[in-house]
Formats: sequence, C-alpha cells, structure tokens
Amino acid sequence: MVTVNFSPEIDHAKTLKILNEIRGDAMGGWVDLPRKYDMAELARIKEAAAEIHEDSDFLVCIGIGGSYLGHRAIIEALRPESPTKIIYAGNSLSHRELENALTELGDADFSINVISKSGTTLEPAIAFEAFKKKLIEKYGAEEAVKRIYATTDAAKGALHDEAVANGYVRFVVPDNIGGRYSVLSAVGMLPMAVAGVDIDKLLEGAAKMAAGFSEEYLAVNAAQVTENPIIKYAWMRYILGKKGYDTEVFASFEPATMYFNEWLKQLFGESEGKNKQGIWPASVVYSADLHSLGQFMQDGRRNLFETIIDFPTDEINAKVVTAVRTAHSMGGIPVLNIGVSEYNEEGFGELIYFFEMACAVSAKLFGVNPFDQPGVEAYKAELKKLL
Amino acid sequence: MVTVNFSPEIDHAKTLKILNEIRGDAMGGWVDLPRKYDMAELARIKEAAAEIHEDSDFLVCIGIGGSYLGHRAIIEALRPESPTKIIYAGNSLSHRELENALTELGDADFSINVISKSGTTLEPAIAFEAFKKKLIEKYGAEEAVKRIYATTDAAKGALHDEAVANGYVRFVVPDNIGGRYSVLSAVGMLPMAVAGVDIDKLLEGAAKMAAGFSEEYLAVNAAQVTENPIIKYAWMRYILGKKGYDTEVFASFEPATMYFNEWLKQLFGESEGKNKQGIWPASVVYSADLHSLGQFMQDGRRNLFETIIDFPTDEINAKVVTAVRTAHSMGGIPVLNIGVSEYNEEGFGELIYFFEMACAVSAKLFGVNPFDQPGVEAYKAELKKLL
Repeated sequence: MVTVNFSPEIDHAKTLKILNEIRGDAMGGWVDLPRKYDMAELARIKEAAAEIHEDSDFLVCIGIGGSYLGHRAIIEALRPESPTKIIYAGNSLSHRELENALTELGDADFSINVISKSGTTLEPAIAFEAFKKKLIEKYGAEEAVKRIYATTDAAKGALHDEAVANGYVRFVVPDNIGGRYSVLSAVGMLPMAVAGVDIDKLLEGAAKMAAGFSEEYLAVNAAQVTENPIIKYAWMRYILGKKGYDTEVFASFEPATMYFNEWLKQLFGESEGKNKQGIWPASVVYSADLHSLGQFMQDGRRNLFETIIDFPTDEINAKVVTAVRTAHSMGGIPVLNIGVSEYNEEGFGELIYFFEMACAVSAKLFGVNPFDQPGVEAYKAELKKLL
Repeated sequence: MVTVNFSPEIDHAKTLKILNEIRGDAMGGWVDLPRKYDMAELARIKEAAAEIHEDSDFLVCIGIGGSYLGHRAIIEALRPESPTKIIYAGNSLSHRELENALTELGDADFSINVISKSGTTLEPAIAFEAFKKKLIEKYGAEEAVKRIYATTDAAKGALHDEAVANGYVRFVVPDNIGGRYSVLSAVGMLPMAVAGVDIDKLLEGAAKMAAGFSEEYLAVNAAQVTENPIIKYAWMRYILGKKGYDTEVFASFEPATMYFNEWLKQLFGESEGKNKQGIWPASVVYSADLHSLGQFMQDGRRNLFETIIDFPTDEINAKVVTAVRTAHSMGGIPVLNIGVSEYNEEGFGELIYFFEMACAVSAKLFGVNPFDQPGVEAYKAELKKLL
C-alpha cells in the first residue's frame, strides 16, 4: 500500500478528463498493462530466464534510457539472488566503460539481451557489435545466435530484421508504450527475471495500483478518484510548481534505491521538461546526503520541495526520517511523504505504477504531452551533422 | 592542464581580497596542502597501505560525508588495480545496507579504516561497532587491534581516545581542513593508496594548480590572477547566479565519474546552500542522461546552466560532446566547458584543487562562509530529541 500525508485541493472533473485522455492516448498502453498482462509472453520470458540461468554466468543487457533504467532500478534496489549476474552496456559512448564491461565479463559464459526499438540508436548499436563479436569468437556463429535475446519492434527496424534473419529469440517493445513507461513490458521483465526478481509479485503490486484506474472501477467509483494517493500527489506537485517551486528533490533513506531515483528523474524530466518549463527532478540518498546536500535542503534557496519515499525500516532509521521531516519543514521547505508498506517486489511494483500515473497526470495538468521527447531529437540532429 | 572556454568580467581587487581571506581562514589548511605535504605522513600512509595489501582482501572504509565521498569519487573514476578491494560502510543508517556490506565481506581477510573526526557521528559509529565485532570474532582481540586504522582528531575525541587506549595505527584529520576539503589529507589518501590510486601523481596534479595561489607566486604575479581558469570559473558561476540561474548541472561523459559528481554536489551544496540562497548543484552522466534529463536540458525551464567536465576521449564520444554543447546552447542554456587534459591521477588531482578553490572563491563572492555547515546541525538536533 502507498500512502501520502497531504490532501491538496483537486478539480474532480478535470482529473477525470485527464484520465480519459491518458487512457485514450496512442502511448497509453501502460495504463492497463499490469492488470491485463499477456500470460503467454510472461511464460516465454520465464522460460528464457531459466535457459539463461542454465547456460550463462552473465547476461549482458544492452540498452539506454528507457531500455535500461527501469530494470536496473529494481534489480539494484532488491539485489535478488540469481545464478546469472547482469552486466549493463550500451548506455554511454565511453570506450573506458565498454572496456570495463568486457573486462568484467572475462572468459565467463554469457548471453546477450539487446533492447532497442529501432536497433539504430548509436550507443547500444556499438555495444551490441562488440559483445556479439565476443560471443561469436567464444561459441562460434551457430551457437552464438542461440545466446542472443532481442527485445525490439514487433514488425520492423534494423534489429527486428537482423533478429528474424538470424533466428534470435525475440521479445516485443510495444508500440503503445514509450521507453520511460516500459519497465513492466518485456523491456524490463526479461532482465529482471534473469536477475532473480520475482516478476509475478512485481506485476501484482502494479496491478493493485492500476485497479483504481480501470474503466470498470471508475465507471462506478468516479467520485472517489480524488481520494487516490496518486491523484493527490499529482495535484500537490502541480500546485507547488505553480507557486514557484521549481525543483523536486526525491529523497530516500535506502542507498540501494539510487537507480530508482535515476528512473524517477528520467520519468519526470523527460515527461515534463518541455516548452521551457517543468519542475527539475533531483535526488538525494540519506543519511549520506544529510552530510552533503542536507545543508542546502535545510538552509539554502527556498524554491525546492522534498518528496520522501518512505520505506519500512528499523527503529533508528525511522527516527532519522522523522527528524529530517521535522527539520526540513521547520527550515521552510514543503516535505511530501510517500509511504510504502513493503520493501520488496510488491512494494516496488506499486511504486512504479504510482509514479508512472502521477507523472502522466501531472504533466497533463502543466499542459504538456507526457509521452513525447522532442528535445532529445535536437542533439541527435547535431550529432548526425558531425558523424 | 585545465582550460575553460569563457572569460567573464572579473573584479581584480576583490579577487585578491577574497584569496587573502581564504588563505587566512582557520579552515584554509587545504590551500597549500598539496604543495607542502607532510612527507613523513605520506610515507606512513604508503606503509600502512602496503601492510593492508599484504594481509587483507578487503579494506572496510567507514565514514560519511567528507570522510567518504572524496576518496570514493577518485577510486570509482580510476578503477585502479589492487590486491585489496574497498567496501564502504557507515554512510547510511539502513540495516539493509549494513547487511549487504557484511555479506560482501563474507569470510575474507580484512582490515578497517574508520574515519571520523569526533568518533561520535551516529552512522560510522554503528558500522564501526558491527565490523569491529566481526574482526575480533575472526582474529581475536590482540590481532584485531593491528587491523584497525583510525583516521581521527590528533588530540581528542571518542575515536582518538579509543585508538590510543588500544594502540590502533592512527592518522590525523587536520583541524584546519573541513570534511568536504579533506580528500587530499589522510582522510582520503589512505583509502586511495590501498585501492591502488597513485597518490603521488594525484598530489602532483593538485600541487600544479595550487602553485597559482601560493604567496610567492601571487606576490609577483598578482596581475595575472584574473587569467587563472579557476578564478574565471568562480566569477562565471557567480555572475550566472546573480542573473537568476539557480541550478548548475555538472555534466560528464564518463559514467565512472558518477561519484565525482556526488563529491561536487557536496562541495558546492554544503559550501553555498545557506542563508536561504545558493545555486542548486545537480549532475548528469551522458550519454545515458541524454536519453533522460537531456529532454529537460534541451527544452525545459530555462534557469539552469550546464558545466561540462570535458575529459579526453575517443573520436565518437568527442563528437557527442560537441553536439551536446551546440544543441544545448541553441536551446538557450549557458554551457560552460572545463577541459581536462588527462584522465588519470594527475588530471583528477588538478580537478580536485580546481573545484575546491573555485567553490571557496565563489561562495565568498555570494557572501557566505564556504567552510561552515550550520544547517546540518538542525537535523542532528531533531534526531537527538528522538533518540
């Protein structure tokens, strides 16, 4: 269960209108995804994971942005046990980083999960070439193709075509789900399953939150939508944004959630940072950052607000959470508390859906499209000129 | 060598006055540190590192804030080779984190470097108890004390007293250097030496930058101080801050510098975030974040500026740097470029001093004390009430 400690004023009619728009959007495929999962695909994902556990010490996950951050966030947060370790690659152009990944892999047995809608994004394409070469050298061409799992477009694109031609095992990046909303699709589910995450429980958690937004539920309970903590949070940050708070600091007291913060920064930054506006998403991990950015939180510029993701913890850490909430509030910054009842797959499943829906609603309130990223194209165009 | 691509207007007299204040400050011990290092202590640090290499698979480094971030930043960036791996502990109150560290250690041979000026800071104190217990169980009390290296106050405090009573090897946290400026003191030098960082080269790099601020140099070359890239950068960010740019985004294209960004955030956030003002320090690591916060950088709210830390790299990555600089400038955000000539100990030594001095000068320009952290005390007071 996710709970919040605030109750902003909510425009009920506007909320329902926005929810309708989100559901109807061509990129709204994630709204019902956890409740209506394709069970045949889920079975194929588990089957592939079992095979990789059998024959690979490492799975090299190649992807960037939405094809990278979501599963890494959950894997790092939960640190589950698995016979197969994950190596992440293709998320930068640093040759040092690529060499480090190849060194870490060494001579161990491995498979590759290449995740790219188009197959032409530069970073993963370069990394895929390097690891595919290593795979072929190690196993020969015939065996190598059995160790490549391609998560890509269902029908077209460079990676799709290569996968079909070579007979790689294929999974689908859905057309109606954008990268930053895709962690519960095959994009994230295969790496998570291989890493030992209980993906059934993760889906269960997300499905619980999704139930409050189903057509069936809303048809009967439309009046209750303003009681939903997701809606409360979306409105709260919209109201703070309108008041001039221009930076949201996501705060966690669990160091292992660092990449979850990165996922949040992508989700909100890419969804809202357009048309020369948006709330800048930042993050801190306490208590380390109490001895760092804590000074700024307490006494610096007052146009930021803090969103604490409050996981269940032991007695001492819980007291630190309380102390921080009190001290920062007294210091003059709004502190929002998002309480999570379980630190496990179910809890993180709830959180994923919580933030996906809150972000979509909030972006709509600010009047921007939560599902496009026109600014990313600007640098790609500059790069194309140079290459 | 560090170079910058901007030339702000600089008040020469004010700059010299500030440099005098910094040098004369009771916490200005870091100004000449790299040039006038205590060679006897450096030898003791190397000796201790050699002993740890001999008898330990792991060194458990226990510390938080300034007793943690600096050395981790350099170790993660350079990933040097060493017979002894570092485990970081005592930088949170999460029991999950502590358990993970104990699990990672397993039954391997280890030593402890506990780093705390007072010895009473809660996080490291708790971790130290846990690892000391494990050490005594494994080696017995007599052998255990030989495996504890205490970096603490020279003359007083709980950790100092315990170290003297038990005969731990001791290193000193200097009285005239604050935590966030302490990476080149024993605080950071012992862990770095154990991790395989060439600490001589690191000091050399820092000393080169420090030479431009020595009394001898300035006595003769006071007129040239405005040509120093450190001074240019300090004034540039001050001018941008005054113009209303309230967020500085440190950008790197090397994923391994993630913790260096964290060190920068502590340095600037804790030095400047006071009296309800300050530039919020944020960070991105490209090209991953081009597929994330890149959207916001390109097209979001226009009150941020970007400071690229531009390491030498290969041809493709260099083109990405150029493309980003062009695209973001065209998007309307000021892009500052800090060029570093070497990705090695010398280069990072230069960078450490570059940012320490720039931060001190910049804070002084904003009219705040770069060396105190009154806000951190507010949460400590709240916590004390609860415990």
